[in-house]
Amino acid sequence: MNMRSRTGPFRLSLFSLAIALAIPASAAAESPSRKDIQMVAPALDKYTQDRLLGEVWKRPGLSSRDRSVVTLAALIGRNQTIALGDHFKLALDHGVKPTEISEIITHLAFYSGWANATAAVVIAKDVFAERKIAADQLPAEAPALLPLNEVAEADRAKRVSDQFGAMFPGVVQYTTDVLFRDLWLRPDLAPRDRSLVTISALIANGQAAQLTGHIPIGMNNGLTQPEIAEAITHLAFYVGWPNVFSAMPVAKQVFEKRAR
Amino acid sequence: MNMRSRTGPFRLSLFSLAIALAIPASAAAESPSRKDIQMVAPALDKYTQDRLLGEVWKRPGLSSRDRSVVTLAALIGRNQTIALGDHFKLALDHGVKPTEISEIITHLAFYSGWANATAAVVIAKDVFAERKIAADQLPAEAPALLPLNEVAEADRAKRVSDQFGAMFPGVVQYTTDVLFRDLWLRPDLAPRDRSLVTISALIANGQAAQLTGHIPIGMNNGLTQPEIAEAITHLAFYVGWPNVFSAMPVAKQVFEKRAR
Amino acid sequence: MNMRSRTGPFRLSLFSLAIALAIPASAAAESPSRKDIQMVAPALDKYTQDRLLGEVWKRPGLSSRDRSVVTLAALIGRNQTIALGDHFKLALDHGVKPTEISEIITHLAFYSGWANATAAVVIAKDVFAERKIAADQLPAEAPALLPLNEVAEADRAKRVSDQFGAMFPGVVQYTTDVLFRDLWLRPDLAPRDRSLVTISALIANGQAAQLTGHIPIGMNNGLTQPEIAEAITHLAFYVGWPNVFSAMPVAKQVFEKRAR
Repeated sequence: MNMRSRTGPFRLSLFSLAIALAIPASAAAESPSRKDIQMVAPALDKYTQDRLLGEVWKRPGLSSRDRSVVTLAALIGRNQTIALGDHFKLALDHGVKPTEISEIITHLAFYSGWANATAAVVIAKDVFAERKIAADQLPAEAPALLPLNEVAEADRAKRVSDQFGAMFPGVVQYTTDVLFRDLWLRPDLAPRDRSLVTISALIANGQAAQLTGHIPIGMNNGLTQPEIAEAITHLAFYVGWPNVFSAMPVAKQVFEKRAR
Repeated sequence: MNMRSRTGPFRLSLFSLAIALAIPASAAAESPSRKDIQMVAPALDKYTQDRLLGEVWKRPGLSSRDRSVVTLAALIGRNQTIALGDHFKLALDHGVKPTEISEIITHLAFYSGWANATAAVVIAKDVFAERKIAADQLPAEAPALLPLNEVAEADRAKRVSDQFGAMFPGVVQYTTDVLFRDLWLRPDLAPRDRSLVTISALIANGQAAQLTGHIPIGMNNGLTQPEIAEAITHLAFYVGWPNVFSAMPVAKQVFEKRAR
Repeated sequence: MNMRSRTGPFRLSLFSLAIALAIPASAAAESPSRKDIQMVAPALDKYTQDRLLGEVWKRPGLSSRDRSVVTLAALIGRNQTIALGDHFKLALDHGVKPTEISEIITHLAFYSGWANATAAVVIAKDVFAERKIAADQLPAEAPALLPLNEVAEADRAKRVSDQFGAMFPGVVQYTTDVLFRDLWLRPDLAPRDRSLVTISALIANGQAAQLTGHIPIGMNNGLTQPEIAEAITHLAFYVGWPNVFSAMPVAKQVFEKRAR
């Protein structure tokens, strides 16, 4: 591949070739520019500027950092890689740590499917390289785990086992061993944030029924009702109104039951 | 392909290079050719020709124009960009106006999620450029809105506010201010077409429960029961039988209730 | 940029150019390498190696061949092309025949939507070319069909027609003519495997309610209850825990009803 020994006048360097080659390839995965949006849907640009960026992201009920966590969960959960690179960068700018992004991706392998996580890795890798985030800034593969609430976990395990243990022993075993006695206890993403990610992914994928279990877990992990409500408002824009209108009645019931 | 014998002037122009470069990049987003399909799944090609193109698109219950609107809603609603370029072109050929395509994309930002709309912009931009559709053929950013049915909207707003206003004030406010007092009143896509897009996106995303609200809105906006039924037949092919079999019982109940 | 003035030796062959060109284009659709995953999410790599590849794929309840069928259905059903190339190859290595892959893609056009199938064709085409799978190894376009169980089909058709025939004649007609009297009888994918594909795609897309019909069809086609339960365990990783926790209560009810 050494081209320096070339003797004739050759001015198209491999470097410029690489640049040229890179453009069409990465373009496929990149968000459209504001000008692109204006050339197709001026109203979409206006709503993006006035409402989404101008209002929603600035609402007081949820920090920019939490909004980034919710947005990442929505995009990874729905396998929407097009805007993901920009949102990884925005998340880092909002104070989401590289370790947390790493754990969000791993968490969502379980809560939205393996291929969603691997697709996110492809995008995150380039962002991490650009931001010079190296291996020593990532979570350990097998760190010391957070302490387990043995009583609550035994109760959860019993309920799931009673309902599904006889027929679906594999799922029940992995739910206990891998999810609740391992993944959820990994220290580089707080349980409260894991719940925010899980709840967001459930809403993003139209899995409203599963909120009955995960909103109470989230509130036990420190999420407040107004925070969850504000996450739902934020999600309306990123996962569409219908998913949110399916989630609200379920969330409402959970909130009311908990208030009693 | 042997180039080692080359000694004379180099004839691979940058133009041909650009062509070569364009192929792999755009291939990622392009539908397979008929030959490609035949090389993998001859039966799929046969069903496409005989049933989908040969029959479904020609059924009398819905115009080609409306079928294109339904198909665009299904593809954008499910973020399936692979066939979207071809279907934008087909939609233009079927008489869907550029302004309408623009508004369909904006509408679906709200009804299927922001990233679905931005992904559609990337594809539409190239089609608009190819068809020489310039900025002056696009909808105004902030046009004079259609008149509002104040009574119906006040009724809708009250019901949603009574149910969700206390717990989810953000969603309730945006639903009124941005959706029903702005988006739905933009003049470049008729309310009847917005309903066709919305209903199609709901079915495409397995959000059958939300049809209870949106089919009556659609019929108030001028969609007929046979048109909705025929859209559902069309959608069976584009969003899969299971989504349609989940939608039909809900639609049936709505039709029966309305007939009383 | 004018290259016509070149006179010296030019050693960058078109072949190496093609290689270079191929990299960015295919990269977009390729799974990340193990190293890529480690550079972003070391825990994801560990879970992939220890649990998914090290345990799940080796569990005795379902053959590697069936696990590949389930995985392909999940990925095509969710339009997740990123890992699909690798899984087509793995499926071939596990003994899934090219004719079966071809029929799985065609089957899923109907059970998850046309664009899912065409996106899968784009990936499969390259794998088939690489493995030198030519047209004579593909299913016939219109082969002699398997014998129909006239009684069972008449019963199914009557139930669907009674419920939906008056309102949705198009769907009802295509369900009979194209699905149950044609697609399901194509000989190159066994009815038992079509059921495995269908059930997997339903779970993959959150269509749990449709399992009520399709699990009994699958068991009539030869799938056993433990096989379905094990497919659900496998799917937990590929389509996410929430889809599986929505599917289990429905599957449980069907199993219990059938046991009576």
